[in-house]
Amino acid sequence: MTEKPLILIVNDDGYEATGLEAMVEIAKTFGEAVVVVPDRTRSAMSHAITMNEPLHVKQYKQRDGVSYWRTNGTPVDCVKIGQRVVLRDRKIDLILSGINHGSNSSVNVVYSGTIAAAIEASFSHPAVGLSLLDYSPNADFTAAIHFGKKIVAEVLKHGLPQHTCLNVNFPNVKIDEIKGIRVTRQADTYWEQDLEERIDPIGRKYYWLTGHLVDVDHKEDTCEWALAHNFISVQPVQYDMTAHQYINDLKYLENVQ
Amino acid sequence: MTEKPLILIVNDDGYEATGLEAMVEIAKTFGEAVVVVPDRTRSAMSHAITMNEPLHVKQYKQRDGVSYWRTNGTPVDCVKIGQRVVLRDRKIDLILSGINHGSNSSVNVVYSGTIAAAIEASFSHPAVGLSLLDYSPNADFTAAIHFGKKIVAEVLKHGLPQHTCLNVNFPNVKIDEIKGIRVTRQADTYWEQDLEERIDPIGRKYYWLTGHLVDVDHKEDTCEWALAHNFISVQPVQYDMTAHQYINDLKYLENVQ
Repeated sequence: MTEKPLILIVNDDGYEATGLEAMVEIAKTFGEAVVVVPDRTRSAMSHAITMNEPLHVKQYKQRDGVSYWRTNGTPVDCVKIGQRVVLRDRKIDLILSGINHGSNSSVNVVYSGTIAAAIEASFSHPAVGLSLLDYSPNADFTAAIHFGKKIVAEVLKHGLPQHTCLNVNFPNVKIDEIKGIRVTRQADTYWEQDLEERIDPIGRKYYWLTGHLVDVDHKEDTCEWALAHNFISVQPVQYDMTAHQYINDLKYLENVQ
Repeated sequence: MTEKPLILIVNDDGYEATGLEAMVEIAKTFGEAVVVVPDRTRSAMSHAITMNEPLHVKQYKQRDGVSYWRTNGTPVDCVKIGQRVVLRDRKIDLILSGINHGSNSSVNVVYSGTIAAAIEASFSHPAVGLSLLDYSPNADFTAAIHFGKKIVAEVLKHGLPQHTCLNVNFPNVKIDEIKGIRVTRQADTYWEQDLEERIDPIGRKYYWLTGHLVDVDHKEDTCEWALAHNFISVQPVQYDMTAHQYINDLKYLENVQ
């Protein structure tokens, strides 16, 4: 790469997130950064796209050579708008998603807007999603920025396998407490979920979604293990959701008439 | 199974969809059906969940032994509400999602609310998502009902591998034109997308998401091939999105310090 790389940044926490500025700090180290993000919090939007209403996009800031755009679309829409509208005639070198406030490890991959955006990006570009295990709006991104720069440098140098993004999660600890990086697989986990019942002032029931993550895996090659032991988890993620291992077992269904 | 099975039905096209009644017709053949669906169209919502606003659920119909509930939640929320609120103390035997108006084959899996709901269901139950390759509100579900019953009968009899749902897509043809069933893998495809620019009456630009599916695969073991040749595609789908085949190639990242 001889020219300065062009880096598109998206997220799911919206244009006011602290994690967005952390990502800009990473990207500026390497090249020209352009931000296209939701105009409000769009966490847990997964791979949702906007088909039933029109999309808007507007530049809201230009600072230190970085242009910032926001849209009413989802995180995945941000990728499409970045590629097709904001940077329409330019060659994008890398797409970064985040830095997310909160974990996107294990089963969170399927709910996450941050990782869905990275997956969408990976259809056509090298893409990395970054997340810090701290939901707080005032989360400390120092270690994530430090190691994020190192990981992004490697991706810019070596590229990534086709149609594969990296899902990077940082444990919520200080730089000197981080033990290193582990390349992991998705842990077998699920959300033990409940719907907390409340009564509104008019006497009608309503519910809040609550729950906690259950790890039924615990193996040392998983993201959850790495993060629990203060390693950064780097996970290759693809969009192929076929359970290939069961195709032969299910072949009997071809005899149904 | 000695007792009449209890079947939860969800969808992403909402409570007014013709495909919902088609799914009820399938489920009623086998047992007691309970419907929990969105109160409006929630297509392309993927695995989105509702965390930033309260959820409501209300019974809106009881007919022929089937109880119908609708909610402001997403398709995946419908699964959680069905399990945790509507059928809280009852044992669910099967969760069905659809019948969707339109294809959920290949890359559509990652955008689809129908299949996301089936994946969510598969964390704890046997689950099947059904889709017909016809977006029309007046689509003809005759063949889908006919073969859907046969596939559901097999699933009730044999079960499914753990944490695996079936993504079933029906070609949009008459019963006697269907060549049979193929157990397939997800075709390597992507949406060649564009954002169609328009100007509103006040002179502001806005965009509609448009596009067409590009198949770069074409192999005979894929969903797209099966459907193009008038076979029903039955695909085992899992929530593990790890690109396992690249873990070793990326191990060099563990040396980054």
